[in-house]
Amino acid sequence: MLSLLAVALAAVGTSEARIGGNDNWVRPAPGQDIDMRLLQDDANDAAQQINLRIVGNSDGKWNYYVQFATNNTFAAPATTCSAWTDDETITGTGSSTTYANLNTGGSYHNPSDIYQSPYLHKCKLEGLRPSTKYFYQALTSETLSFTTPPLAGTSEVFSAVVLADVGQTNYSNMTMTRAAEALETSGASSIIWPGDLSYADGYQPRWDTFGRLAQVLTGKGEIMWAGGNHELSSQEAWMAYQQRYAGTGPMWFTTQRGPMTLVSLCSYCNTGTDSPQYRWLEETLPTIDRALTPWLVVIFHAPMYCSDVSHQQEAEEMRVSMEPLFVEYGVDVVFSGHVHAYERTAPVNNYTVTECAPVHITIGDGGNREETANEFYQQPEWSLERDASFGFGTFDILDANLANWTWLRNPAGYFEFPGQTPFPVMPDYTIVDNAIWNRTACRT
Amino acid sequence: MLSLLAVALAAVGTSEARIGGNDNWVRPAPGQDIDMRLLQDDANDAAQQINLRIVGNSDGKWNYYVQFATNNTFAAPATTCSAWTDDETITGTGSSTTYANLNTGGSYHNPSDIYQSPYLHKCKLEGLRPSTKYFYQALTSETLSFTTPPLAGTSEVFSAVVLADVGQTNYSNMTMTRAAEALETSGASSIIWPGDLSYADGYQPRWDTFGRLAQVLTGKGEIMWAGGNHELSSQEAWMAYQQRYAGTGPMWFTTQRGPMTLVSLCSYCNTGTDSPQYRWLEETLPTIDRALTPWLVVIFHAPMYCSDVSHQQEAEEMRVSMEPLFVEYGVDVVFSGHVHAYERTAPVNNYTVTECAPVHITIGDGGNREETANEFYQQPEWSLERDASFGFGTFDILDANLANWTWLRNPAGYFEFPGQTPFPVMPDYTIVDNAIWNRTACRT
Repeated sequence: MLSLLAVALAAVGTSEARIGGNDNWVRPAPGQDIDMRLLQDDANDAAQQINLRIVGNSDGKWNYYVQFATNNTFAAPATTCSAWTDDETITGTGSSTTYANLNTGGSYHNPSDIYQSPYLHKCKLEGLRPSTKYFYQALTSETLSFTTPPLAGTSEVFSAVVLADVGQTNYSNMTMTRAAEALETSGASSIIWPGDLSYADGYQPRWDTFGRLAQVLTGKGEIMWAGGNHELSSQEAWMAYQQRYAGTGPMWFTTQRGPMTLVSLCSYCNTGTDSPQYRWLEETLPTIDRALTPWLVVIFHAPMYCSDVSHQQEAEEMRVSMEPLFVEYGVDVVFSGHVHAYERTAPVNNYTVTECAPVHITIGDGGNREETANEFYQQPEWSLERDASFGFGTFDILDANLANWTWLRNPAGYFEFPGQTPFPVMPDYTIVDNAIWNRTACRT
Repeated sequence: MLSLLAVALAAVGTSEARIGGNDNWVRPAPGQDIDMRLLQDDANDAAQQINLRIVGNSDGKWNYYVQFATNNTFAAPATTCSAWTDDETITGTGSSTTYANLNTGGSYHNPSDIYQSPYLHKCKLEGLRPSTKYFYQALTSETLSFTTPPLAGTSEVFSAVVLADVGQTNYSNMTMTRAAEALETSGASSIIWPGDLSYADGYQPRWDTFGRLAQVLTGKGEIMWAGGNHELSSQEAWMAYQQRYAGTGPMWFTTQRGPMTLVSLCSYCNTGTDSPQYRWLEETLPTIDRALTPWLVVIFHAPMYCSDVSHQQEAEEMRVSMEPLFVEYGVDVVFSGHVHAYERTAPVNNYTVTECAPVHITIGDGGNREETANEFYQQPEWSLERDASFGFGTFDILDANLANWTWLRNPAGYFEFPGQTPFPVMPDYTIVDNAIWNRTACRT
C-alpha cells in the first residue's frame, strides 16, 4: 500500500501547491447554514420535505415513491398522493414510520438529546408513463411536477442534473434552485447525487431544515443516490439518509434509465477484492446489456482522481481494486463528490491518459458550509478542468455515441442582484463519447 | 421537571448510601471481555452466531427466523435451514445481507476503520407447531434445538428466561450458559431481553465475538427484544442490533405468547405524551384482549423504579408520561435492565405501594464488563429485593392468576469448580399475581 501511495502521489505531480482553479474568478465568502423553517403553520400535518425515488418499473411503466414528512406531534395522517396529466390521474397510498437517534455529542441519559423524526411517509405511485410530465400532490400539498425518464432500451435523450456535497447554506440554496430551473427548462427527469446531503452531522433537526430547503429540487425529479461520509459519521450511521431519502436497501445497486445503466457504489463500505461489494460488482458488470443501455455510469462519493489537496488518496484502496473492472467493462463516466471543487479528467486508467477508460468527474462543489477546496497540486496530465467554485452539472445522453456534460458555476450575487442572468456562460462544457460505441479501438 | 425530580429523589429515600445488596454475598472481581473466536475453520462458510426470532403465526402455527452469519470473505451461501420432530421435517429458505459501519473513534478516511459485517442470513421456518420441541440446523451447522411457545389463548404454562446487560465476559458466559440450561431443563420457549447485548460500543468486530459466545443461549429459544443504550450510542445507531437480532421493524411493538401479551418499548425514543411512541401505546393498550391473554408484560431498557445509585432517574420522563397508562390498563409486570443489579418492587404507582399497579423488575445484572452497581440508597418501601450480583431470572406464567418469578444469582466459582451445583438455592423467589384476574379490587 505504501508503494502504491508513492506512485499515486507522483502521478498527481509535485507537492507544489497553487491557489485557486483555472481562472481569475473571485470567490464569495463561505456560506453559513441557513435555517429553513416550516413555511406552513406548525400546528398541522402538512406534507413537507418532499422527495422522489424510483422503485422499479413493470409493464413499461415507472413506479415512484413520493417521500415526505409530517409533524410527529400530531397523529400520522394516512399516506396519500396523486399525480396527473391532462388525460389520467393516478392515486397512491403508502405508510409512514419514524426513527429515533441520539444527537451526536448528546447523552442517552438526557431525553432532550434523543431526536424523534417526523413521520416519514412513502407513497407509491404505480404505472407512470415514461417520458411524461406529471403534476402531483403529497397529501394536500401545493401542486408540484416531475417528468419521468425514458425506459431502458429506448433511443430518447436522457437528461439529469448532477450535484453533491450540498448542505444548507445560501450557496446550497443557489445550487439547488438553479439545478431545479435546469430540470424545468430541459424537461430532465433525474438527479444524480453521489453523497453528502444535509451536513446535519449528527444533529438530527438539521435534516428537517435541509429537507425543507431542498424540496425545491428534490420534489422536482427522481434521485439516484450514493452515500457520503456525512451520512455515516457522527452517529448518523446511514439512518437519516436511508429513512428519508435512499431507502433501506443495499448500499450498492444498479438501476436503469433510458440509455443508461447506473451503478451506485459505497465509498464507506469495504471495497477490496475480498469484499462483498467487490464480489457483487464483479458479478454484476458482465451482466449489463450494453446494446440495451449503451451508457454505463458509476457513482460513489470519494473520487478516485483528484488533483486537489483536499481528501487526497482517500479512495485509493477502492481505485486499486475496482478500476480494473471499470476499464474491463467499459464504464463511460464516473461521478463523485467529497472534494469541494469541480474537476474533470480525460479518460484515465491507473493515472495514465488512455482512450479506453472512464472520464472521472468530481462535482462536490454543491455549496455546503465547509467552504471550497481551493488549493490544488500542479495539474496532472489526466486533469483537464478544475475549479474551486460552487455549482452543479448537467448530463445529457444524446444517443449511443455521445453525451453532453456541462458544469455550471454559481454566479456571485445571483440572489443579491435578481436581474442578473441566472445562466452565465458555462465555465466547462465537453462532449463525452461512449467508451464502447464511439471508440472503435476500445471494443473488445 | 425539577420539582418532579425532587419528589422522586425523596421517594427513594435519603442520599445516605450503603454498599452491597441484601446479604453478605462475596462478589467476584469484575470480568474482562473474552474473545470468542470462531470455533470452526475460518476458511469456510459455516453458520455462526445463530439466533432465533418469531415473525408471527398463521393457521395455528408459528413462523420463525433462524438468523445466522457467514464469513463475508467468501460468497454468501444460499440461505437454508431445517427443523424437525420425530414425524415431520420443515425446510426453510431466506436471504442474506451485510451492513457497513464506521468503527467508533475511527475515521472515514481510513478504509481499515470501515467495518463490513459478515453475511447476515434470515432463514424462514414456517408452520411450526406450538409447544413443540424441534431440532434444527442452519446450513450444515451442528444440530441445535428449541421449543416453540404456546399460541395466544391457550391455557398452557408459558416459561421464559429474562436477562439483560449481558456483554461478553466470563460472567456473561456464566449467565447465558445457565440460562440455556434453565431453558433446556424447563422446556421453556422464550427469552426476554430488555436491551444491552454485546457491549461492542461501536467497535463492530465485538458483535461477532459476542454472537459466537451468545449462541449457547440465542440458538436455544426465540428472543423478545427491547433496545438498550449500548445498541444506540457510540455510532451504533441500532444498526448491528437490528440487522443481527431484532429486525428492522418499529422500535416499539406488541407480540403474543400463550397467556401473555408483551409490549416492547424504546427507552431511547421519545416517550412524552406528544410522542409517536406514547400515541401508539395509548392506542394499543385498550385493544389488548385480557381474556385471550390474561398477562400484560411490558419491557424496556431503563427502569422506572430503581433504588440503586446508578442511572438514577433516567426514565423519569417516561415514567411520568406512561406509568398512568400502565396502571389504567393493568400491566402486571415490567422488566427492565440498564442498572447492573437485580431489583424487584412491590406493585407500585407513582412511588407509592398500591395493590393495583405493576411489579417492576430490574434484571440488568447479566455480567458485562462494567461491573455491578453495588451502591444503593436506603431501601424505599416499594423496593422488596435488591442485590448487586450477576444472574438472570425465570418467569413462568402458570395460569390466568399466578406466575412464578425466580432470580438466580450466578454462583462464584461455577466454572472454577465444575462439581458445584449449578443451581444453588434461589436468592429471590416470589409469586406474582395477575393485576386484573387475581386482584378483585383492581378490576375496573
